[in-house]
Amino acid sequence: MPNIKMTIEYDGTNYCGWQTQKNAVSVCDVIVDAIKEVTGETVKLIGCSRTDSGVHAYGQVANFVTKSVIPPEKFTPSLNAVLPDDIAILESKEASPKFHSQYSARSKIYKYVVNNSKVRSPLLKDRAYFVPWGLKITKMKVAAEFFVGEHDFRALCSAASTAKSHVRTIYDVAVNKKGNIIEIDVHGDGFLYNMVRIIAGTLVDVGKGRIAVEDIKGIIENGDRKKAGITAPPQGLYLMEIKY
Amino acid sequence: MPNIKMTIEYDGTNYCGWQTQKNAVSVCDVIVDAIKEVTGETVKLIGCSRTDSGVHAYGQVANFVTKSVIPPEKFTPSLNAVLPDDIAILESKEASPKFHSQYSARSKIYKYVVNNSKVRSPLLKDRAYFVPWGLKITKMKVAAEFFVGEHDFRALCSAASTAKSHVRTIYDVAVNKKGNIIEIDVHGDGFLYNMVRIIAGTLVDVGKGRIAVEDIKGIIENGDRKKAGITAPPQGLYLMEIKY
Repeated sequence: MPNIKMTIEYDGTNYCGWQTQKNAVSVCDVIVDAIKEVTGETVKLIGCSRTDSGVHAYGQVANFVTKSVIPPEKFTPSLNAVLPDDIAILESKEASPKFHSQYSARSKIYKYVVNNSKVRSPLLKDRAYFVPWGLKITKMKVAAEFFVGEHDFRALCSAASTAKSHVRTIYDVAVNKKGNIIEIDVHGDGFLYNMVRIIAGTLVDVGKGRIAVEDIKGIIENGDRKKAGITAPPQGLYLMEIKY
Repeated sequence: MPNIKMTIEYDGTNYCGWQTQKNAVSVCDVIVDAIKEVTGETVKLIGCSRTDSGVHAYGQVANFVTKSVIPPEKFTPSLNAVLPDDIAILESKEASPKFHSQYSARSKIYKYVVNNSKVRSPLLKDRAYFVPWGLKITKMKVAAEFFVGEHDFRALCSAASTAKSHVRTIYDVAVNKKGNIIEIDVHGDGFLYNMVRIIAGTLVDVGKGRIAVEDIKGIIENGDRKKAGITAPPQGLYLMEIKY
């Protein structure tokens, strides 16, 4: 039976996140329903990243095994025809039987978007974190470098994290400002629960002057979540790409 | 009594457009209501551009005369506190008593956004015109040049136009592609009803090969609306800036 790999874009605003939850509609549920509508099967859909409610994706990856004889690439138009406007399959193809969207992933790229205007932006509603205070971008760029490398990131993940190991490797954190928009691009081998949002919140706190650049190293080493910055809100976060 | 000039951003998706209409909610109505909530006055709000339903604005300009003693720049935070999330005042300041947002305007800049991906984009829902066919961008760039200059644009406006003169001057039409996104930036001294959307629709038809580049000159000169391209949908259009 073919193992189908799909790349998925979604606007996370109206969902409880990727993963199924009681009494809430998840992105995964909606796609499973669409696959059932097209094939008649209820498949087990494995998503790579459990994005939170309000988090968006340009490149979520999920896979499922199917008895269907639909050619793998035809799942794209078939599913898009029945999916709602805020979810789309960008690509579908057959992967090796061993492919697992989560375990086979080598690294992930996320983007965090900050709207640093003085006034909230209607066209960025649900799409960015609105920070009207002045932010020192140069300090944010310097602070970003301290996250790069292999570290125990327990200070930068939710207290709700159930990960066995908190060691992750971050390959790059880039902070760029274009007009009033600050983009924080993070590439790593994996991320703990809320980790990108806490890195973004910590960098915003550095920009505001609430956290000193020279304290970042100690915050990571110390391992105390309370010393890091806030968890920046979900609507600024975009899952951009998963590398295999 | 001070004449207040405001710059306004909005997501036009949920409105019947800028202008008041029976049995529908307009952007203008909502701002007039917000001004009444703040000042107690029902003002006459004059908008520069009568954007259609679904059209967005980063830089609409409107003015009103008020008896209120609120400092002009304080209308920005006061109105934003009561306006819905999809409308925001970016700036408010006192203008000369003669300033009229429409009659004083010297030129306007619009952007038209085409999503030229193979698959619809959830994150560009209501924000772009989805064109999944191949478009020859080089031909679109060449065709764009023919619109520049002073022309009678009756071939490129809605049959519903009630303009006395159809002569307008276009200073620039730029077509640029970044990834799958094509942006058409148009700067002119004024625009007829639906004119930017018909220019965009005509350029997309050139990209598709339905209209030949060498026919554009004749289409403008001929004055027959039917020879030009379709009226591209409103959700791709953004009012960017009005120059005074």
